Amino acid sequence: MKAIAVRRGEETPSVLEKPRPDPAEGEALVRTLRVGVDGTDHEVIAGSHGGYPEGEDHIVLGHEAVGVVVDPNGTGLSAGDVVVPTVRRRPNGSNDYFARGEPDMAPEGFYHERGIDGAHGFMSEYFTSPAEHLVHCPPELAELGFLVEPASITEKAIEHARASRSAFEWDPESAFVLGNGSLGLLTVAMLQASFDRLYCLGRRDRPDPTIDIIDELGATYVDSRKTPVDEVPDVYEPMDFVYEATGYAKHAFETVEALAPNGVGALLGVPSDWKFEVDGGALHRELVLHNKALVGSVNSNVRHFERGVESVAALPEWFTDALVTGVYDLDEFERAFDDDDTTIKTAVEFGSR
Amino acid sequence: MKAIAVRRGEETPSVLEKPRPDPAEGEALVRTLRVGVDGTDHEVIAGSHGGYPEGEDHIVLGHEAVGVVVDPNGTGLSAGDVVVPTVRRRPNGSNDYFARGEPDMAPEGFYHERGIDGAHGFMSEYFTSPAEHLVHCPPELAELGFLVEPASITEKAIEHARASRSAFEWDPESAFVLGNGSLGLLTVAMLQASFDRLYCLGRRDRPDPTIDIIDELGATYVDSRKTPVDEVPDVYEPMDFVYEATGYAKHAFETVEALAPNGVGALLGVPSDWKFEVDGGALHRELVLHNKALVGSVNSNVRHFERGVESVAALPEWFTDALVTGVYDLDEFERAFDDDDTTIKTAVEFGSR
Repeated sequence: MKAIAVRRGEETPSVLEKPRPDPAEGEALVRTLRVGVDGTDHEVIAGSHGGYPEGEDHIVLGHEAVGVVVDPNGTGLSAGDVVVPTVRRRPNGSNDYFARGEPDMAPEGFYHERGIDGAHGFMSEYFTSPAEHLVHCPPELAELGFLVEPASITEKAIEHARASRSAFEWDPESAFVLGNGSLGLLTVAMLQASFDRLYCLGRRDRPDPTIDIIDELGATYVDSRKTPVDEVPDVYEPMDFVYEATGYAKHAFETVEALAPNGVGALLGVPSDWKFEVDGGALHRELVLHNKALVGSVNSNVRHFERGVESVAALPEWFTDALVTGVYDLDEFERAFDDDDTTIKTAVEFGSR
Repeated sequence: MKAIAVRRGEETPSVLEKPRPDPAEGEALVRTLRVGVDGTDHEVIAGSHGGYPEGEDHIVLGHEAVGVVVDPNGTGLSAGDVVVPTVRRRPNGSNDYFARGEPDMAPEGFYHERGIDGAHGFMSEYFTSPAEHLVHCPPELAELGFLVEPASITEKAIEHARASRSAFEWDPESAFVLGNGSLGLLTVAMLQASFDRLYCLGRRDRPDPTIDIIDELGATYVDSRKTPVDEVPDVYEPMDFVYEATGYAKHAFETVEALAPNGVGALLGVPSDWKFEVDGGALHRELVLHNKALVGSVNSNVRHFERGVESVAALPEWFTDALVTGVYDLDEFERAFDDDDTTIKTAVEFGSR
């Protein structure tokens, strides 16, 4: 079967021929439909994040997949089930994080990440997976199921942010998404139902397809070149919830100033080291005197994927049409890895239902 | 009646003669037993925090009180009840925060703080209070009830920190209290029941009475001059919970590095502006990749006071004997405001039960 992988020493993905995998006990065999591409894939390709599976000279890419079960192999699944695989897998033997269904909370050494770190991903015509790491999707989501993994990332961040505010009555009205990439836009769409006023940060000029989506979602576009994050309360309003999906570290600190009293900032970006000056006294004081919180969030578990399925199913068609700017067959898969201002979200198509 | 107050333009407290207050409808009249002194009192005296009641040339100090009801005035209380007053009060009319019993979550303008900001405190022979802001204390706590308010501050911080970890299974074992002042030591004692290993940060040499208490509590003293907060994971262990009670802003940032994966830092200090350099990229990344959280916490509500009563009642006698280094009558009240290395916690005594 064909797979899209990056070889050790190379910095572009290529198509490899690999044997079709056989499901082990407890695993199902899945025929891949589509696999999305995101910033993490670009980091894996560049070698700046993740690592190769032990003993392998390549890693199959892809962690945002949707597929169809072709061999349930005695698991509770049925042939024809549309499924989305989760990303983290047991490295060797089990551990408490996996045993309680929370691999997203495991520290390094306690997990591999398929397509990212230590395990092959889903960009191949077939993949196998333990049934417990396959989340059911309604058949109507066969084409858009590759959005469930990114949606699950947001579900987890929202869950942890809300948990941090659960000791008191918190009725948030305003939310500010930092970043107009595909995850940022998806998050704005997902927050629509629960927030009265939405804002989304970017650094682009109109006309721009991401700003068009922000407008269409009824959110307010905030240009970070004109309005720094920490000035947003003065120019717009203080934000009950900030969702940071930029990886730009100054934004993480400015988030404290952007928040309304009792607000929470969910941080999701993964920046490199970067030293800069902050008014640490003012930030510390602001966190304390206004009961603010910052919550870091990485990865997601089955519970978040299940909610992600619901969230993706609820997205309006105009939105997914605008968000997904390209779905490419294997023979032009390179185009899925293009990253320019007209590209928002792409996927590689391996087959159809 | 006599009251300890600071007058506008003065920077030391003095004893004033004031009329005994009459309880309004819904208020009880309370005879004051003891009132504790903490860092906030020193800030109020210095004029660096809080403010005078409107139209007044002085503010009666004290927000950590215990007293006995002398006139229930038709409230549900009974004469002889030992009570601890909460600190925040409605400024004018009600608001949602007070209506739902969460004045601790109110932003500025929605509250006064008795003895601190906009309202007279409890350092007088009698005070009045709405019954809903008086928390019952067992009579045995008549002498130590002034510790309930600081204990309630810790109860709230713990509640919010635990809430932030409530979306997953969190079984913390190690806790690190930053600060060996009276609040820090009280917190170490309060955390004993729920953490296996406790650490407490200070910057003093042995022999020192606070370090003796830390030892006696079975906690490990960490000298910040030898082991900076961010090196604690290497020298001791990563901490599941960090409680910051120093007001030293660099500690708030170093807390991120001190935390174990999935850990939470509760910030309680109130520093002044202070610009310094941080590796913001590393801190941001660390928060995200290890699902860490920072939670600011200020003030406390009746629920926290009620838990504080239980916590103070559970403190061992040797601990409170060592913690409370002085209780002074009105005629030597100045000694309660001394702040040297042999002073840990002091109170002014207005009467006995």
